[in-house]
Amino acid sequence: MRLNSRITIVLLVFAASLPFLIHFAPAARAANGSAPAYASNGDLLPVSDYREWIYLTSGIDMSYNPKPADMTTFDNVFVNPEAYRSFLATGTWPDKTMLALEVREARSKGSINQQGHFQGTQLMGLEVHVKDTARFPGGWAFFSFDSPSKNGTLIPQGAPCYSCHAEHAAVDTTFVQFYPTLLTIAEEKKTLSAAYLADEAAATQSK
Amino acid sequence: MRLNSRITIVLLVFAASLPFLIHFAPAARAANGSAPAYASNGDLLPVSDYREWIYLTSGIDMSYNPKPADMTTFDNVFVNPEAYRSFLATGTWPDKTMLALEVREARSKGSINQQGHFQGTQLMGLEVHVKDTARFPGGWAFFSFDSPSKNGTLIPQGAPCYSCHAEHAAVDTTFVQFYPTLLTIAEEKKTLSAAYLADEAAATQSK
Repeated sequence: MRLNSRITIVLLVFAASLPFLIHFAPAARAANGSAPAYASNGDLLPVSDYREWIYLTSGIDMSYNPKPADMTTFDNVFVNPEAYRSFLATGTWPDKTMLALEVREARSKGSINQQGHFQGTQLMGLEVHVKDTARFPGGWAFFSFDSPSKNGTLIPQGAPCYSCHAEHAAVDTTFVQFYPTLLTIAEEKKTLSAAYLADEAAATQSK
Repeated sequence: MRLNSRITIVLLVFAASLPFLIHFAPAARAANGSAPAYASNGDLLPVSDYREWIYLTSGIDMSYNPKPADMTTFDNVFVNPEAYRSFLATGTWPDKTMLALEVREARSKGSINQQGHFQGTQLMGLEVHVKDTARFPGGWAFFSFDSPSKNGTLIPQGAPCYSCHAEHAAVDTTFVQFYPTLLTIAEEKKTLSAAYLADEAAATQSK
């Protein structure tokens, strides 16, 4: 995919006039995972190489309400390497952080596997959570992608994902409580949110 | 963990004589994910930064026999970046490939999660599969780690993992059939093993 993206960019460079060269330059930066870049309509430019970012965690059939999921899927979370290295040092996210959440099919019987679930080739969803404090109210926004190689569409700030992240996420509106290697760092650096600590205290009291 | 490893190496450099300097130099290379390196007793040196390698897949409770697992665990697979880039170009693994398989606790109720499973902070196992054709019969060996920051112990070549990988793995004794972004590349590059293709043909016939 990375090679194909490069070929596409090269073709565009040869086919395009100077204004288009300037237009597409941010796409190359976004694809390298270094910083978010946007189209003129506010879309987030493609994140084609997010599978080469730093892996944070996976879940299966996670749900925040008691109703079980209709179908079995995995979710995998990645972060751009620059933001990851900053988190290791500080316990929180720098500006220009991008977290990618992919939803992928879960298969059970296949090859020699007889039990449990493994991940199949079908990508079933992709969202990117972007920190860009000069651009978004509250500092963060979610974008939904039909494909990693297409632009992502802004999810409006009134959508429930924003309030849920604000009210329950462990660090800076992100669900670090589900990122095992980062949770211990946030604990050490004392960057856990007041909302999360209140949730945890309430859960401990109700046991 | 990476910072602690660096501090350890620095302390060793100051404390040690020249033979020890030479001895510990490969540890830094191994920790950077560029190539396997070994202790004089044949152990694989630490792979402290494997969580910063390229992520390939996760599974939950996968088992190659019909008996369900006694407890619920995730497995996550990573590969050193150099080997990953070579696989993208060729559909198979270069010499000095290292694949890390970690087993991690699966949790269900926690924070606001009500259904399914997410990954907890407890690392429950770590194995590394190394391709080093000049060193190992068949080109590959498995090493078992008590901790990513300690040396790994060679699993003897007669162990069942070697024969199972040889008989059922999709590419060069590795289970690429469970690595969704690499399986399509192996299909395109026609690097799928005869053993795997025979398994798939038999499974199709029995349907």
